[in-house]
Amino acid sequence: MTIRTGLKKRLKPGWKKEMRQKLNYEDVGFAKIDHHRIKRKGFPETIFGQGKTPDQTAKIAEKIYSNGQDVLITRTNKESFIAVKSILQNAEFHETAKIIAISRKKQTKKTKESICVLSAGTADLPTAEEAAVTAEFLGNTVQRIFDVGVAGIHRLMNNLKKIKKSKVVIVVAGMEGALPSVVGGLIDRPIIAVPTSVGYGSSFKGLAALLTMLNSCAPGIAVVNIDNGYGAAVMAHLILRK
Amino acid sequence: MTIRTGLKKRLKPGWKKEMRQKLNYEDVGFAKIDHHRIKRKGFPETIFGQGKTPDQTAKIAEKIYSNGQDVLITRTNKESFIAVKSILQNAEFHETAKIIAISRKKQTKKTKESICVLSAGTADLPTAEEAAVTAEFLGNTVQRIFDVGVAGIHRLMNNLKKIKKSKVVIVVAGMEGALPSVVGGLIDRPIIAVPTSVGYGSSFKGLAALLTMLNSCAPGIAVVNIDNGYGAAVMAHLILRK
Amino acid sequence: MTIRTGLKKRLKPGWKKEMRQKLNYEDVGFAKIDHHRIKRKGFPETIFGQGKTPDQTAKIAEKIYSNGQDVLITRTNKESFIAVKSILQNAEFHETAKIIAISRKKQTKKTKESICVLSAGTADLPTAEEAAVTAEFLGNTVQRIFDVGVAGIHRLMNNLKKIKKSKVVIVVAGMEGALPSVVGGLIDRPIIAVPTSVGYGSSFKGLAALLTMLNSCAPGIAVVNIDNGYGAAVMAHLILRK
Amino acid sequence: MTIRTGLKKRLKPGWKKEMRQKLNYEDVGFAKIDHHRIKRKGFPETIFGQGKTPDQTAKIAEKIYSNGQDVLITRTNKESFIAVKSILQNAEFHETAKIIAISRKKQTKKTKESICVLSAGTADLPTAEEAAVTAEFLGNTVQRIFDVGVAGIHRLMNNLKKIKKSKVVIVVAGMEGALPSVVGGLIDRPIIAVPTSVGYGSSFKGLAALLTMLNSCAPGIAVVNIDNGYGAAVMAHLILRK
Amino acid sequence: MTIRTGLKKRLKPGWKKEMRQKLNYEDVGFAKIDHHRIKRKGFPETIFGQGKTPDQTAKIAEKIYSNGQDVLITRTNKESFIAVKSILQNAEFHETAKIIAISRKKQTKKTKESICVLSAGTADLPTAEEAAVTAEFLGNTVQRIFDVGVAGIHRLMNNLKKIKKSKVVIVVAGMEGALPSVVGGLIDRPIIAVPTSVGYGSSFKGLAALLTMLNSCAPGIAVVNIDNGYGAAVMAHLILRK
Amino acid sequence: MTIRTGLKKRLKPGWKKEMRQKLNYEDVGFAKIDHHRIKRKGFPETIFGQGKTPDQTAKIAEKIYSNGQDVLITRTNKESFIAVKSILQNAEFHETAKIIAISRKKQTKKTKESICVLSAGTADLPTAEEAAVTAEFLGNTVQRIFDVGVAGIHRLMNNLKKIKKSKVVIVVAGMEGALPSVVGGLIDRPIIAVPTSVGYGSSFKGLAALLTMLNSCAPGIAVVNIDNGYGAAVMAHLILRK
Amino acid sequence: MTIRTGLKKRLKPGWKKEMRQKLNYEDVGFAKIDHHRIKRKGFPETIFGQGKTPDQTAKIAEKIYSNGQDVLITRTNKESFIAVKSILQNAEFHETAKIIAISRKKQTKKTKESICVLSAGTADLPTAEEAAVTAEFLGNTVQRIFDVGVAGIHRLMNNLKKIKKSKVVIVVAGMEGALPSVVGGLIDRPIIAVPTSVGYGSSFKGLAALLTMLNSCAPGIAVVNIDNGYGAAVMAHLILRK
Amino acid sequence: MTIRTGLKKRLKPGWKKEMRQKLNYEDVGFAKIDHHRIKRKGFPETIFGQGKTPDQTAKIAEKIYSNGQDVLITRTNKESFIAVKSILQNAEFHETAKIIAISRKKQTKKTKESICVLSAGTADLPTAEEAAVTAEFLGNTVQRIFDVGVAGIHRLMNNLKKIKKSKVVIVVAGMEGALPSVVGGLIDRPIIAVPTSVGYGSSFKGLAALLTMLNSCAPGIAVVNIDNGYGAAVMAHLILRK
Repeated sequence: MTIRTGLKKRLKPGWKKEMRQKLNYEDVGFAKIDHHRIKRKGFPETIFGQGKTPDQTAKIAEKIYSNGQDVLITRTNKESFIAVKSILQNAEFHETAKIIAISRKKQTKKTKESICVLSAGTADLPTAEEAAVTAEFLGNTVQRIFDVGVAGIHRLMNNLKKIKKSKVVIVVAGMEGALPSVVGGLIDRPIIAVPTSVGYGSSFKGLAALLTMLNSCAPGIAVVNIDNGYGAAVMAHLILRK
Repeated sequence: MTIRTGLKKRLKPGWKKEMRQKLNYEDVGFAKIDHHRIKRKGFPETIFGQGKTPDQTAKIAEKIYSNGQDVLITRTNKESFIAVKSILQNAEFHETAKIIAISRKKQTKKTKESICVLSAGTADLPTAEEAAVTAEFLGNTVQRIFDVGVAGIHRLMNNLKKIKKSKVVIVVAGMEGALPSVVGGLIDRPIIAVPTSVGYGSSFKGLAALLTMLNSCAPGIAVVNIDNGYGAAVMAHLILRK
Repeated sequence: MTIRTGLKKRLKPGWKKEMRQKLNYEDVGFAKIDHHRIKRKGFPETIFGQGKTPDQTAKIAEKIYSNGQDVLITRTNKESFIAVKSILQNAEFHETAKIIAISRKKQTKKTKESICVLSAGTADLPTAEEAAVTAEFLGNTVQRIFDVGVAGIHRLMNNLKKIKKSKVVIVVAGMEGALPSVVGGLIDRPIIAVPTSVGYGSSFKGLAALLTMLNSCAPGIAVVNIDNGYGAAVMAHLILRK
Repeated sequence: MTIRTGLKKRLKPGWKKEMRQKLNYEDVGFAKIDHHRIKRKGFPETIFGQGKTPDQTAKIAEKIYSNGQDVLITRTNKESFIAVKSILQNAEFHETAKIIAISRKKQTKKTKESICVLSAGTADLPTAEEAAVTAEFLGNTVQRIFDVGVAGIHRLMNNLKKIKKSKVVIVVAGMEGALPSVVGGLIDRPIIAVPTSVGYGSSFKGLAALLTMLNSCAPGIAVVNIDNGYGAAVMAHLILRK
Repeated sequence: MTIRTGLKKRLKPGWKKEMRQKLNYEDVGFAKIDHHRIKRKGFPETIFGQGKTPDQTAKIAEKIYSNGQDVLITRTNKESFIAVKSILQNAEFHETAKIIAISRKKQTKKTKESICVLSAGTADLPTAEEAAVTAEFLGNTVQRIFDVGVAGIHRLMNNLKKIKKSKVVIVVAGMEGALPSVVGGLIDRPIIAVPTSVGYGSSFKGLAALLTMLNSCAPGIAVVNIDNGYGAAVMAHLILRK
Repeated sequence: MTIRTGLKKRLKPGWKKEMRQKLNYEDVGFAKIDHHRIKRKGFPETIFGQGKTPDQTAKIAEKIYSNGQDVLITRTNKESFIAVKSILQNAEFHETAKIIAISRKKQTKKTKESICVLSAGTADLPTAEEAAVTAEFLGNTVQRIFDVGVAGIHRLMNNLKKIKKSKVVIVVAGMEGALPSVVGGLIDRPIIAVPTSVGYGSSFKGLAALLTMLNSCAPGIAVVNIDNGYGAAVMAHLILRK
Repeated sequence: MTIRTGLKKRLKPGWKKEMRQKLNYEDVGFAKIDHHRIKRKGFPETIFGQGKTPDQTAKIAEKIYSNGQDVLITRTNKESFIAVKSILQNAEFHETAKIIAISRKKQTKKTKESICVLSAGTADLPTAEEAAVTAEFLGNTVQRIFDVGVAGIHRLMNNLKKIKKSKVVIVVAGMEGALPSVVGGLIDRPIIAVPTSVGYGSSFKGLAALLTMLNSCAPGIAVVNIDNGYGAAVMAHLILRK
Repeated sequence: MTIRTGLKKRLKPGWKKEMRQKLNYEDVGFAKIDHHRIKRKGFPETIFGQGKTPDQTAKIAEKIYSNGQDVLITRTNKESFIAVKSILQNAEFHETAKIIAISRKKQTKKTKESICVLSAGTADLPTAEEAAVTAEFLGNTVQRIFDVGVAGIHRLMNNLKKIKKSKVVIVVAGMEGALPSVVGGLIDRPIIAVPTSVGYGSSFKGLAALLTMLNSCAPGIAVVNIDNGYGAAVMAHLILRK
């Protein structure tokens, strides 16, 4: 297996040799950091920030970074960002996406082909941004088209040409989650549907949107967990670099 | 309260007086037939055929008919039709709709305004026809536009003008049930959404479509029970004659 | 399509021409405001206040208002009201309904026909008021009859005559949600049933009431999402102006 | 503990002594018949017929009967009745209730106080009859008032006086299951609510009616399992003989 | 209908005449107080405290009390108690039960027959006390036997004699909710089962206990809503005074 | 790892060497038979008969048997038994358990310690027998105590001494599934609880019993899937031979 | 948009022009055949055979085929095959997959890159074959690796090299559905997870497997509906030809 | 019944006689402390700390301790620890496990055989530690192997030898909960699976993991409630000392 463009540049020179000398994973007491993942999966282990203290977050981030890898922290917050930033000065905070990204060098080379991220409403933005920022962190060119839900379908139609230029489409929608079905009937790209927990009452925290997407009558759609913008981005990344 | 056009003609002359002389309902042993309903609700008591034997169906039908009312039997079958037909010769069977209708005279005067019945797929036809035949039985002009699901949205767009001519729209859809949301974003008519049990797996026998419709981001949509074409038609009828 | 009475008066003179010169929607960065909706749907885009900061709320409100449209903000609070009021002085706060309404001029002409809003219990008031205030904002005459749940059915019976004078009836109920069924058996008007999340234990945040309403044995009832007073009002509005 | 009237007469003379000489239960290979139950609970062990062959049913029936007790078999069918009848000639089949009852002597003395069994629709009859026949078998006077659902509430109102004469009321209803709430608001008797699996779509085989009854806003209502007419009758019996 | 002992004494002299002169209910703006209920149902309208401000609670309490009725407020708290107490000095707060009771005179005469309230664990106490205090307020003699869950069944067995002395048994249990089934197999009294939301994980806030109780293999059990101690007490009260 | 008593005797002499010469599994076209499992897990791969034709069943059975292993087929039927028997003459059919067992020689040596299988009702017998027959097939001594449900708890108490003699207890129960909790409060053995799909209405095909067992307030209980007598037996077997 | 290799060859010469002359879809009475789909989506409209009579199936198949497109019919059976074959002689029946495929000429040129279809158990074969046959019909090279579920993980490990050679992996699994997570941790290809309804009890007809896959801790996995082998194949096809 | 090693040492000398002189349980007002449990079940009554005030916790702890038993408090916090410590100086707080343990003397003799506790992710640690600390408190040797989830299966494989040395294995996992299935396919020890509420969206607070574990295709696995580390430890303890 070779490391593809867009990921190689995330590793400091000489990392490969260094890594072989270590074990596949490193035991830091409360966690076994999977340094081997970047080889197996094509992207580094991501830190799921939710439920971790700023201190814990910073500690794991440092460990991974010092190992020669770039670091992505999802579902995190400003407090954790301050803690991480005090150790790793090049950390950046994407507020809407709730993501901290720590890259060795500015990403200048992006993929020629792009991932399109659509969102149905403004309330779906945090999940849509989680997808977009993750995809960019992994080296992909991302095209954002937000607030094009089915209640005003002309907004979608006006953007159809732009959407078709991308090779993979991530569609983020809450409430009734109908957007992926409509998009799926209009384009011939693989669509990754992301239900969000946006809604109330019988949306049952995203269950309604999830079921809608799983039952789509338009084929060429696959679904990830509710609010899982990160997972959608990784899937899109793997499709693009296939 | 006065009886509106479209219903009056369903009653034999002199019924009003006759009815006043009877009690509000009639006890036929295993049922209390609600002869009073036509006054209270504007349409006669309908026979829910499912689970009734041909014999029971025919017996109740005769009772209601002999009372001066026209009769509608839903969720019924050919066997029951034969039993009813042998007693009430003017009975008609609508096979796809699974409806037996027994009218005193041919409906010649229909409403000027119309109800539009849309269906997403061909498998939704039985429910769509249940709605259409019921609405016609109640004296309404009905416009059928079938198989215009969101997976091929140009089929819907091509029919938009026709749809807008109707005053109420019934939208029947199974699987992900996204059609009402899309229609709801395009027109300014009250929409009655009917989820169907068409689908498999996580459609959970219509639950997915039901939740989709309840969570629609387009306002102006109200929902009836899964596969309840009859209920949608009555609602549309009440709206039209309002 | 022509704009009906009750809506026209919400638009400042000359809006039609101005709007044609603009695009169908306006991109304010985090949202695409659908200025075209008032033409397509017969009512302006409403701001769903929940989850929006006072600042965001005020900003979107200003954008829509400056476009010549009146503004309705639902599921909002006092903090947002203060922010909106500081920009748009004619903003009014309906506390129980949790609605901010901003109208160009006092609504003097209301519809001749009325919408009746019934509520089962006092805890259902916020949803009932959301429906009533929205319906009034859209130019309709509204009749409120609250706290007439089935546990003391004489309260309902005493109000039956008044209810029958309305052309559409919105019935709001939590807990077991039986009120629409009972009302549906007594009147011949289209009924929009609104389940609320009022209750505890096996009410499962409104699920019990929702299922009750969907399974009503009285036809002529259609259901909206749990706590969705706004949606019920829009449906009733579309029915009335049909 | 003494055996109450209505039960004593079900036992052949001398049973008490005989029973003491036996063990508390009898092992017939595939079952331990609980002969002791009539002492502990005030009624004999009932045979749940569903899933048992005619042969098995007849065998257990004979065992219990030969022990000096009367026998009740619920959820059974004609085939099992023929098998039982060939052994125990005084067996009687209640077809709608799906019950076989085998009594030593005709029940002549019934309780002075009565149990009222209400049903909402004709489709609820099997469950309502299961309740009524069981209650009668246990020696109670039963009053049946069927088909008085909330969609035609005048039918209920006309029967109110009769209902109030009973000391306990069993209310059987499917679909939305609203009847117990309405009855509960009108009378001051303990109400046992029985949801039935009658309905379709989002009734989810009785779940909707069950939730409705559990969430009733009228106090004085307790609920048994879906379609459990037998359980309701036993509860009513225990209340009456309290 | 006559008012039974235990309730009569809750009314100030002359109330009957006074009430006839009033309407059946009183409109206090946000609520229609059902003064007629005590006649129809045998107990006064209870105030459901949850979600009401201390001020609202006190206001409704005063209204009902000034009407000549005693007052019961459930699911309330210390703040509301202080507000009520400042107006109605004889108000009493039952902390564990979360109940405020306001009685005209000390209840001296209680029923000869008693209601037994069992609880499975210590965490079920609030619901068990809600049942016990309500039952006492309605004039019943109550016997409390707490913490006798099935995990240590000897505690239940040791209390069996005492339990059998009561005429009705309320069984309160959370977690797996097995206690009513076991009690139901041991005694011949009507049992009202109250599931509580005590538990975690797959207890799903009381759903597990609720289902257990509904499916009990021991007949003579009926179930009320999760945590509904009040409802169980009213049911028991109606059974006792039957 | 060494093969324990009770399993070794199921293998024909010399199997160990033979097996090492083969691959770990064998590809028979539509299945990869896992011959290695007996080494890894201590018992041979079992054939899940449900959904397999008699022919398929016989073919896989022959393959495994000819490999030197004894064969167990669960959830099978008489037709499959005839097909298997025609090839492997020593096949035996356990009708209630729905199991075909094919052993090289009569099991004469059983374990000294025993597994106790309890069942709540007679309808739970098929699952209880599936557990008992499987456990015996694996070489264990099994003690059956059936029909000791909580509705007649004296039947359980009378058997307590016998139960305590076993080292592991499997408790099978449908409906409300309370038996494991009660047993768990009385003995100090590991208990494997098996919910069954026996019941109706809100038992939801075993869900009620499953939740009951998972939420048991008595520790020392672990649960397997609904109707999974086989899985319980394997767990008990592993515990016993630990 | 251009038609990609693998699809072009499915169309008879001159189809493009012919199609432009027709409308976008064709109304055959009960269906609007979407001839335009092949242009929009890159594959022809597929016939969902379930619930269609042999006659209906054959009629739609003929319509599509005569339009110049190849035809795929899923969820069909032998009876429908006979009906189709009598009209279209080159129809082929894939029994396990329950698919009828009608191609103009033998597919000789397949894609260089391949799709790998994994299945966990033998019972998952119908869904796995539905995926594999569909993918092949669309012109893709398919690699089948069946019966490699996690209970015998060495079978998976032995096939890892082969799996890694494919560019997209479809993983089909019922019961607990854990296979995609394990595969997802081992390879860096996009994985499409297909839960199947294989299982019993708390598998709730595939719900357990569905939830497992949606919650996978290994990123790079997206999920389709239960038993939706067809949808997985279309998604994989779109990814491959991206 | 005799008290096994590992428990005896938890009791102060002479306890047996003292206990016989007391009743089986002790009534401290709001609870009946089950002093008899240690004899019946082999371990003392544990205090479930959740929902108890520091004061209540300390009071019950003192009662049990003064009775001669060691004390275990689960789901507790620092505040309660301070309250307990001020009374019982040898109390120890296990922060991650949220457990307070109060032992008469240092546990020096542990069992020769060990229990292995595996966890899938770092977020599962609190539950894994609850299991480990409880097992140690009961006198068992515990081996912890954390963070070995299936997304990086080499971490599990590297620890396989160590795992196989234990006699019972507890596997703790959230999200998709696949770890027990994989472990179950690799070893021949009884496995106790503990789903955790770790996850989001369609994990539904542990439901997804729970269903996965119940449906495991690898036999030899039994499941406890979500987050129930304590229950798993007691089960493992009973298996080990069997």
